[in-house]
Amino acid sequence: MKKYDVIIIGAGPAGIITGVTAKKQYPEKSVLMIREEDKGLVPCGIPYIFYNLNSVEKNAMGPKPFIDLGGDVITDPVIDVNVKEKTLKVESGADFSFEKLVFATGSRPVIPSFIPGYDLKNVYYIKKSYNYINNLFNELQDKKNIVIVGGGFIGAEVAEQLAMHTDKKVSLIESEDLCFSKAFSNELSEIATEQLRKANVDVHTSTLVEEVLGENGVVTGVKLKGKNDIKADAVIFAIGYKPNTEIAKKAGLQINRVGAIIVDNYERSSEHYICAVGDCSQTLGFLTGRCDYIMLASTATAEARVLGYNLFGIKIKKGFSGTIGIFSTEINGLAMAAAGLNEKNAKFANVEFISAKFSDVDRHPGTLKGTSPLTAKLYLSPSDGTILGGEVWGGKSAGEMINTIGLAIQKGVTVYELMSLQVGTHPLLTTAPTKPVIIKAAEVAISKLRTLNK
Amino acid sequence: MKKYDVIIIGAGPAGIITGVTAKKQYPEKSVLMIREEDKGLVPCGIPYIFYNLNSVEKNAMGPKPFIDLGGDVITDPVIDVNVKEKTLKVESGADFSFEKLVFATGSRPVIPSFIPGYDLKNVYYIKKSYNYINNLFNELQDKKNIVIVGGGFIGAEVAEQLAMHTDKKVSLIESEDLCFSKAFSNELSEIATEQLRKANVDVHTSTLVEEVLGENGVVTGVKLKGKNDIKADAVIFAIGYKPNTEIAKKAGLQINRVGAIIVDNYERSSEHYICAVGDCSQTLGFLTGRCDYIMLASTATAEARVLGYNLFGIKIKKGFSGTIGIFSTEINGLAMAAAGLNEKNAKFANVEFISAKFSDVDRHPGTLKGTSPLTAKLYLSPSDGTILGGEVWGGKSAGEMINTIGLAIQKGVTVYELMSLQVGTHPLLTTAPTKPVIIKAAEVAISKLRTLNK
Repeated sequence: MKKYDVIIIGAGPAGIITGVTAKKQYPEKSVLMIREEDKGLVPCGIPYIFYNLNSVEKNAMGPKPFIDLGGDVITDPVIDVNVKEKTLKVESGADFSFEKLVFATGSRPVIPSFIPGYDLKNVYYIKKSYNYINNLFNELQDKKNIVIVGGGFIGAEVAEQLAMHTDKKVSLIESEDLCFSKAFSNELSEIATEQLRKANVDVHTSTLVEEVLGENGVVTGVKLKGKNDIKADAVIFAIGYKPNTEIAKKAGLQINRVGAIIVDNYERSSEHYICAVGDCSQTLGFLTGRCDYIMLASTATAEARVLGYNLFGIKIKKGFSGTIGIFSTEINGLAMAAAGLNEKNAKFANVEFISAKFSDVDRHPGTLKGTSPLTAKLYLSPSDGTILGGEVWGGKSAGEMINTIGLAIQKGVTVYELMSLQVGTHPLLTTAPTKPVIIKAAEVAISKLRTLNK
Repeated sequence: MKKYDVIIIGAGPAGIITGVTAKKQYPEKSVLMIREEDKGLVPCGIPYIFYNLNSVEKNAMGPKPFIDLGGDVITDPVIDVNVKEKTLKVESGADFSFEKLVFATGSRPVIPSFIPGYDLKNVYYIKKSYNYINNLFNELQDKKNIVIVGGGFIGAEVAEQLAMHTDKKVSLIESEDLCFSKAFSNELSEIATEQLRKANVDVHTSTLVEEVLGENGVVTGVKLKGKNDIKADAVIFAIGYKPNTEIAKKAGLQINRVGAIIVDNYERSSEHYICAVGDCSQTLGFLTGRCDYIMLASTATAEARVLGYNLFGIKIKKGFSGTIGIFSTEINGLAMAAAGLNEKNAKFANVEFISAKFSDVDRHPGTLKGTSPLTAKLYLSPSDGTILGGEVWGGKSAGEMINTIGLAIQKGVTVYELMSLQVGTHPLLTTAPTKPVIIKAAEVAISKLRTLNK
């Protein structure tokens, strides 16, 4: 039986970054990565396969950086793990033993088996699998009417991309009253939903799918609750993902109420030699410490870096406990990003907050060509002004500005501190120095706090 | 004699933001702003007047937001301040009295009176004056050979813009061995200088101007030390600015060795009722507390916000003492930004440091259209890994990413903390979640630190 110091199950972002970091920190350790398919995909790039990239291969991702550092990789699904004996078995029959085992098994799309017709031909999912997506990409080429169910990031982004093909009619069905409603505030969800409509997506919100309609086992449309049927040559369900933890569960690891492997701050399960990172591992909200549903490659890779460094003893203290969801997207040319608290997740967790926003443009003077609007919104504690969340939308720089807000949340920065925050500005790159939108939003927040405290 | 609660001398970014903040915080107070010209300019937008905007008017800026809040404005240069009596006199002869006085008098270009011929016709400066720049803009229209002296931000940006006019031949003379050498590291200065050459600017580094040549009192060229003369129809000196503090000096205020008004953390001179903000006020480096030459609109407005809030008593504690220079620019389509320490200012102040960098691209996968290279470089203390400086260059997002580094410097973040930093990523907006360049640079830094400590 071949023995490795470390075995990583999974070759997505969490698995690769764990492997790369571990090999860099512990070059003398033998590390094996076990994957299910020979080729991998950049997960967040999947929607862009359908139009911007117009290619599956251009979105391929593999463990080359890990191999270059001396890591071993095999393609052979793990079918069983023996925690006590520190061994595992793969589909081809081989056994391996390990000193440390890392689950980086990711997540799988939720299959709506409760909807009649969910198993018809031409019903698809956005699986993070090269072979599956390659097949989907090919099969969608000649489909005209496409219905996407689920207006979260993946569903909405796939819809926006497919709608760029002028020969396709793309409908998006969302059960909530707005798309992106889990990650964005009401205000930003509204803007995002409107952008989808401007991108020629036929958006149906507050709408439930009752049945997937078919003839001879093939999709012909969807039946909506209280609305007219929609014709469909293909239906794509994008109604969420669940942690891929069947092997872990079978091996006896503790699983939380959302199906993720329970781990500590350093990604270790109750057995220190069994770890889990990424979508398959437990995520705790930064404010409440409750277990959360956040499944983001950016979060997964942060966890993987922490694990990779600390695999054989804690070397680097984690700077920040809990996970902030930091989401961003671009729909119809409008960049939108959110971090941490907004009025929806605040209500869910019963967190008091106030919000404040400020709008301007992303160049100065605004008469420069290529200038876009830019808005920043902050969510903060009414007690001490600590920043708990934020949103930025408008030009592309929103995608990096949200990371300044993210750092502010992680460092407990208050809106008062932002009054003396120094920033760099330039006509061709940023808002004017007289009104950096994050600082101006903080100024609005301070005025609100003073009114509150009167 | 008309009395005001607050009088602000100057209507640049520092003056306007002081006025706006003060009127918002103290709406009951009467505030007068005194300016020298009816129209103002966005200072950092001045280079873009010459090509991108191709208009002076499009770069105009005025105190409208201040007037909208009830502020008064007059155009009438101040000629004398009486600190003891709390009065001042303007050119037209009127006198005003004040409870608080704010100097926001900015800076003036350095005039090289030590260079023969500096006073010939068609020798210009980049004065922050609407009328002056308007005249320069008009007079440059028919000038073919333009020599710019000084390869700092203003000189280099004006050179890049003028060189976009295919009928002009633009030369840039820099005494140091690279352009941008005060703000950027050697590595980035080299890249920036190369970008200027690619933009068709004829760059002469390590070159001194010995004389401005002329015939009949009009510029015909420049004589360079040890090099051939260059023909010139116009010469623009951009060799720095000095604080505009003659009135303050005459009034008896304390002036530091670089000519700026000495103020405390809250922008107050030794007399609490006399304040100064922006280029005319003292700036202390964030690390050393030494007085510095940093003159940036972004720094000026941060000071102005602090002053505006605290004008009648300190309401908001300043979060951070000292000034970090955060500079950014774009030359020939390459965005470049720097914050805080680099190897040059570190050497000057005898600060120990190590640096580390990481390069990737600003989209993911990198096969997406519109993808640009992106590099982050960090400078940190070898003792504890605290981030003291950084640079980012490549795509436009560099302009906002430097502000995340800026916040990290201000909050004393270490490279170790960056290992668990959570960021948001998106294919169309950022680097991949597997390699955010700032975090990866921190990882490289940690490896260097470990080698050092062995």
